[in-house]
Amino acid sequence: MSIRLAIIGAGIMGSDHARIFSGDLPGASVQVVCDASGERARAVAEACGAADVSTDPLETIARGDVDAVLVASPDETHAPLSLAAIRAGKPVLCEKPLSQSGRECLDVIEAEVARGRQFVQLGFMRRFDPSYTEMKAALSDGTLGRAIMMHNFHRNVEAPANFTGQMAITNSAPHEFDVARFVLGADYTAISVFQPGAVDGAQTGAPVFMVLETDRGQLVNIEINNNAAYGYDVRGELIGEKGSVFLNAPIHLRYNIALTAAERYAPDWRPRFAEAYRLQNRAFLHFVRTGSFPAIAAHAWDGYCAARVAEAGVEALATGARVDIAVAERPALYQRS
Amino acid sequence: MSIRLAIIGAGIMGSDHARIFSGDLPGASVQVVCDASGERARAVAEACGAADVSTDPLETIARGDVDAVLVASPDETHAPLSLAAIRAGKPVLCEKPLSQSGRECLDVIEAEVARGRQFVQLGFMRRFDPSYTEMKAALSDGTLGRAIMMHNFHRNVEAPANFTGQMAITNSAPHEFDVARFVLGADYTAISVFQPGAVDGAQTGAPVFMVLETDRGQLVNIEINNNAAYGYDVRGELIGEKGSVFLNAPIHLRYNIALTAAERYAPDWRPRFAEAYRLQNRAFLHFVRTGSFPAIAAHAWDGYCAARVAEAGVEALATGARVDIAVAERPALYQRS
Amino acid sequence: MSIRLAIIGAGIMGSDHARIFSGDLPGASVQVVCDASGERARAVAEACGAADVSTDPLETIARGDVDAVLVASPDETHAPLSLAAIRAGKPVLCEKPLSQSGRECLDVIEAEVARGRQFVQLGFMRRFDPSYTEMKAALSDGTLGRAIMMHNFHRNVEAPANFTGQMAITNSAPHEFDVARFVLGADYTAISVFQPGAVDGAQTGAPVFMVLETDRGQLVNIEINNNAAYGYDVRGELIGEKGSVFLNAPIHLRYNIALTAAERYAPDWRPRFAEAYRLQNRAFLHFVRTGSFPAIAAHAWDGYCAARVAEAGVEALATGARVDIAVAERPALYQRS
Amino acid sequence: MSIRLAIIGAGIMGSDHARIFSGDLPGASVQVVCDASGERARAVAEACGAADVSTDPLETIARGDVDAVLVASPDETHAPLSLAAIRAGKPVLCEKPLSQSGRECLDVIEAEVARGRQFVQLGFMRRFDPSYTEMKAALSDGTLGRAIMMHNFHRNVEAPANFTGQMAITNSAPHEFDVARFVLGADYTAISVFQPGAVDGAQTGAPVFMVLETDRGQLVNIEINNNAAYGYDVRGELIGEKGSVFLNAPIHLRYNIALTAAERYAPDWRPRFAEAYRLQNRAFLHFVRTGSFPAIAAHAWDGYCAARVAEAGVEALATGARVDIAVAERPALYQRS
Repeated sequence: MSIRLAIIGAGIMGSDHARIFSGDLPGASVQVVCDASGERARAVAEACGAADVSTDPLETIARGDVDAVLVASPDETHAPLSLAAIRAGKPVLCEKPLSQSGRECLDVIEAEVARGRQFVQLGFMRRFDPSYTEMKAALSDGTLGRAIMMHNFHRNVEAPANFTGQMAITNSAPHEFDVARFVLGADYTAISVFQPGAVDGAQTGAPVFMVLETDRGQLVNIEINNNAAYGYDVRGELIGEKGSVFLNAPIHLRYNIALTAAERYAPDWRPRFAEAYRLQNRAFLHFVRTGSFPAIAAHAWDGYCAARVAEAGVEALATGARVDIAVAERPALYQRS
Repeated sequence: MSIRLAIIGAGIMGSDHARIFSGDLPGASVQVVCDASGERARAVAEACGAADVSTDPLETIARGDVDAVLVASPDETHAPLSLAAIRAGKPVLCEKPLSQSGRECLDVIEAEVARGRQFVQLGFMRRFDPSYTEMKAALSDGTLGRAIMMHNFHRNVEAPANFTGQMAITNSAPHEFDVARFVLGADYTAISVFQPGAVDGAQTGAPVFMVLETDRGQLVNIEINNNAAYGYDVRGELIGEKGSVFLNAPIHLRYNIALTAAERYAPDWRPRFAEAYRLQNRAFLHFVRTGSFPAIAAHAWDGYCAARVAEAGVEALATGARVDIAVAERPALYQRS
Repeated sequence: MSIRLAIIGAGIMGSDHARIFSGDLPGASVQVVCDASGERARAVAEACGAADVSTDPLETIARGDVDAVLVASPDETHAPLSLAAIRAGKPVLCEKPLSQSGRECLDVIEAEVARGRQFVQLGFMRRFDPSYTEMKAALSDGTLGRAIMMHNFHRNVEAPANFTGQMAITNSAPHEFDVARFVLGADYTAISVFQPGAVDGAQTGAPVFMVLETDRGQLVNIEINNNAAYGYDVRGELIGEKGSVFLNAPIHLRYNIALTAAERYAPDWRPRFAEAYRLQNRAFLHFVRTGSFPAIAAHAWDGYCAARVAEAGVEALATGARVDIAVAERPALYQRS
Repeated sequence: MSIRLAIIGAGIMGSDHARIFSGDLPGASVQVVCDASGERARAVAEACGAADVSTDPLETIARGDVDAVLVASPDETHAPLSLAAIRAGKPVLCEKPLSQSGRECLDVIEAEVARGRQFVQLGFMRRFDPSYTEMKAALSDGTLGRAIMMHNFHRNVEAPANFTGQMAITNSAPHEFDVARFVLGADYTAISVFQPGAVDGAQTGAPVFMVLETDRGQLVNIEINNNAAYGYDVRGELIGEKGSVFLNAPIHLRYNIALTAAERYAPDWRPRFAEAYRLQNRAFLHFVRTGSFPAIAAHAWDGYCAARVAEAGVEALATGARVDIAVAERPALYQRS
């Protein structure tokens, strides 16, 4: 039996997910595409062969012919729609963030705890990227010894004109917060935030540099630079007692042209993480089919932790001080072996 | 409607194809797994959820509940089983080579010509590897100017003890023959073959070095080294008037360990070409569904050309002379725009 | 006329300098080798063809047959011996640090100012490394736009057992403090220092991570990791508005062996910076010959700035707080155009 | 005592050598610069501080105040001037080739044999390049096992308009002939030469591809591509039983700019081999001082071997056939342990 999916949100992310589910993975079909814009919904529905369209997300989630839900609507709807899916008893793959508010994340967690099982798989797709999984393996198989430090670099070509350091922390950094926490198997205890000033009197695109400390003693450094100009580039290095590993972006060609040997950057994140999305969504279908939550996927608690770090980061940015990160008690539902 | 596939041959290649069709692609299911060994067939059938097993390939191909065929049985059965599929009017994805005999390839070609359409997609999967398609694009978009030379290197960790230079030409080199011809859009006119001698009196694993000439004036050099010891490694460089491009094997991590910065090689071809196989098989399903042969896939004529080069290469190896490559006239069915 | 040099200190650094001056550069000869150990002095003197040996540095500096002085004796003697050279009116190439005490550096500065010219060239040799000079050029020629951030990584295989975070700041980091300041053409205004804790309950080799702010608005991040295990490795990245540049350690071979493609790290700094030392010492001889201080070399004021940053870093490490960096007023003698 | 050198030839190569001897090496000074153009001689003499100039090479070589000779005059003068130096009993560092005629090389050899010692060090400077010496070490220390094959690639940005395949063999390839022979410790027995044809009807810059066989059983492949457009690029790979090594051109920076990660090529050979020239010339000075011929430098016999290969290559290019390479008997004077 093929899984019937509802895609909520027909923007860039939603249409990408619709394409992956319909064209790259077996065992699922898109039943409904839902978007505030009926036109946008119809365009995506046509491209992925969906049976129906809608402009009402709650109604869509409740439909009898929908087995599972993909939420890629605006950020502030993620938690409410995830809650609706939980109430409907349907698994949901929710784009990050679960919520920018740790408090709202706890609402979702409490709903899952009340039902005694997990429904929400959170779209921190980097956990499925082969670079990060191999990095985590280099730690767990002893290649690196104990982890000591991790450096993370997130660069985009250009941010919107009104992009701020705070938005770098709340919108971009959560991917880094989550994946470093995933690789290290640790939780954050404190965050310090630095920003370059006006260089020679002029602003330079609101990059942010963060130093995080973990409960296992590690340092995690994160640069968010959304006006890096040169390309979309995510890099990282994990440093252990015996050595270190770098993330390599998989590259297919090296060009010898015009006095340079050059490898190309993509202008956005999609080529870099295409395989991660495919593997993440495949894991979600397996979750829907079996009820067994994917071992490496992010769950609601992970979403809460990312939100709490971002909240502390915003405070650290505003005050210039090192801010401790306090979290609630982790429910047994989210313990990992 | 899901495409019902028969997998003929349940060895390494057949089971990989069964896994790809059942687990990584939408729109198909494995209906029958057929192998001379019923036990092997059952094991693969179980893994991919096939409905049935068989030990009779011709019967399997003829079944009413089989829409299309994957041939991954021993090399000498490729042409006969492809012919059977043509007779049954069913599309077939046939592992390379179509045949080691150019004459036998022509039999397949004649059968397709007689029916007025193509059925056989040949498993030269490298045409779907993103490195080669980007390389071809660097030529067609003018980045490199006209192509002048291409260097190709094929290395395996270790060949069977009785592996010979002739086998390097007939078993390993066809991938190189085909993909260079694909990238260049040219046909071969001559081949010269060289082998290292006994180095300091001892044999060194039968590597072969070939220089091919094309009808557009290019040189194509190919090293086949199946006892390269250090890893599975396929490399290539395309040299044009304006510059050159190297194939990069996509690598996910770089290890700083024990006084080295190291990237890992796989011991065999599967990780390197996993994506190529997935894309090739997806294109095959599209072919089955639409009847439209994939623009970049290898067809029977391509298989014939590879066989003819190998035949000339074997002669060049035996005689030490440069051997001209003659081919039959290409039927209109195989013209590409 | 050949320049007659005195080498003060016949340890690793002193014997390296003696070898460079006698074997790799024209226009100089080693006249005296001076060391507390007469035996060590004689060994180096013999290797570099020095005319004489001594155990008395002040006497050595004062000799009539000595034109210029190389100071590579223990750190605490650097400033006193530089002062002696100034008093003798002789140019001195002094290994870093000038002093760990900013106050003592000012003594040297005052001595030079009193004589109205510079005598002390400080051995921050990285300024002569082709990687850093090309990096600085990528800034000054506009390739990168304005500089925003710089990441610096300093790694050694293994530190002495009693090595501390404070020693990382005072002994290792000054190279980074100086070279980043040199590349950026900026001065530091504040420093924050972080250390990984005991990871899973055990110490991990006292790495230190620092965030520095400059008077032009840039962030400079420095990792000092003297127990990195995997090799001697100095890396850096300079991030500007238009792009970034990485330091590449020049590598001569890439080894395909045992399932890896590997480039080798040296176990210590000498191969990495051999060319930098040669160019630095050549510039020193030009300084001695012409009296014109090398445009890119570090002078006493640069040594003072490095000392002040280290002093602030030690305070930041001890207190956990961000520490402002105050410096004296820069004498006109040290203004650069 | 400083060695007094005569520089014969004040073109690009001669002035580079004058600069190296006067500015980068101890123990020598340029006594005379000699060139057919007195003006050119004076310009170089001034730059390197030479005592005198001349337009008469034979007179220059014979001068009592000249201890050793550097020959960088036009190719056809190399052998006659080397002979003059031998007659004068003076060591000579002669730019390659010794002669394009094997016969003329034998004249030089006979002159040395008659005097019972070597005078001529030939300017195959790549033997001193750290990449090649490390490559040779990877062979001699057993890292690679026995050598089986070597690939060599020589690329220039642009050749003169009238450059031919024959000139590629006689002018460019000798560096490759010599360095591969040096690395392998083998002699060539046969050569085959291939050229791309007119690609799509137009000429493409006369690249040449050669396959050489050695007396130890190895294959040596050489591409000469003097219109490679993209940069000066010398690459190579040595393949042994246990693995292979690539030459890496030492690179100092990697630029992230404009959607690429790029390393720069130089437009000509000088940056790539600057260190090789310096080490070669230092070895020559040691030879002059001690009379002991440098262990890894090329001597007259090596020059003869390179000339013989080129002669056979020219014949192979003209005839399209594989040509055997015959050499005279090697005099005992040129045996290496």
